Amino acid sequence: MKILVYELRAKYGWVAIDEDVERLLPSTGRGVVHLLSKGSTSSLILIEADPHLIEDLFDFLDKHIPFTNNYKHHLTWGDDNGASHLRATLLGQQLFVPFKDGKLLKGTWQNIVLINHDTHPRKREVFMTLCFEDS
Amino acid sequence: MKILVYELRAKYGWVAIDEDVERLLPSTGRGVVHLLSKGSTSSLILIEADPHLIEDLFDFLDKHIPFTNNYKHHLTWGDDNGASHLRATLLGQQLFVPFKDGKLLKGTWQNIVLINHDTHPRKREVFMTLCFEDS
Amino acid sequence: MKILVYELRAKYGWVAIDEDVERLLPSTGRGVVHLLSKGSTSSLILIEADPHLIEDLFDFLDKHIPFTNNYKHHLTWGDDNGASHLRATLLGQQLFVPFKDGKLLKGTWQNIVLINHDTHPRKREVFMTLCFEDS
Repeated sequence: MKILVYELRAKYGWVAIDEDVERLLPSTGRGVVHLLSKGSTSSLILIEADPHLIEDLFDFLDKHIPFTNNYKHHLTWGDDNGASHLRATLLGQQLFVPFKDGKLLKGTWQNIVLINHDTHPRKREVFMTLCFEDS
Repeated sequence: MKILVYELRAKYGWVAIDEDVERLLPSTGRGVVHLLSKGSTSSLILIEADPHLIEDLFDFLDKHIPFTNNYKHHLTWGDDNGASHLRATLLGQQLFVPFKDGKLLKGTWQNIVLINHDTHPRKREVFMTLCFEDS
Repeated sequence: MKILVYELRAKYGWVAIDEDVERLLPSTGRGVVHLLSKGSTSSLILIEADPHLIEDLFDFLDKHIPFTNNYKHHLTWGDDNGASHLRATLLGQQLFVPFKDGKLLKGTWQNIVLINHDTHPRKREVFMTLCFEDS
């Protein structure tokens, strides 16, 4: 297993990690790379890495899961990040992508985007595990 | 493949299954464990297993996918569980988690939570399949 | 890796692909089949393939991610498919299903459904990769 590390800003921090994942693939062989974002207030999604479109996504989340609500989760730890958790669960925290000979096999506009939903800046880790086909 | 079985109450039944999954891992070797919840009115999600936060999640679902709507699905079988199906599809019914030497590799607050959304209590099965890395 | 191809109508095109996937499984052996829908305006979901229920799903999406909104994404390329992208990201574009001896292991009502959310008809490709258990 390999680990990719990113520093992301609060609530709306994001980065496309396709190239970093691809750089760590073996140059030969085929299979599936499994990516898990460690952390229950982060997401890992497939989306076109167009800043306008990512803004549309955050507009949708702000409307339906606003950071300003009084979530019951805040009673548990005195946290303020109930929205961060719900957003992370709704969008998901993991993806897999097939690969062959060092290249990810996916659509041109299908980027792998890591999001930090938490209410403060966070260091985010992505765990990368390879499973080979026909091995 | 191994099967984990749970009895869950109607609509809002949930349980964290991390420890049960971990107990079934091999004590050596590394790879990815694939978990599929059998049943189209259940979900398998990553979320902190804080009862307050799970309530927040159900509040969100009650607001946007209420059980009280007249779903067209009810016309098909005379069922009353259209909301259960939509919730299951939205949240997803499967997860994978990397493991090494008998331990799941994920965040401290990132629990594996199984939900029964159906309108009656259900026995729920989780199918667990291992794929090894570098095997 | 194998590729399944479908022609789907605009916005609400869908097809259940369970049988096509099963036909391509090896007749012996067990593991997990990974399915990725190539294309950032498509989805691959688990849901009962009941046309009424799929209508319920589209009703939910039309309410919360309407095609008629002015998405910021439209400023980037002059596209009109911001809603298509957001729907695809929310529902997800990939699934895995365990299999054994040529059969998918999942619930009776748990169908694998491919959706084209794009604003014009599209040819859609699903990438299918096998990872064997205990190989």
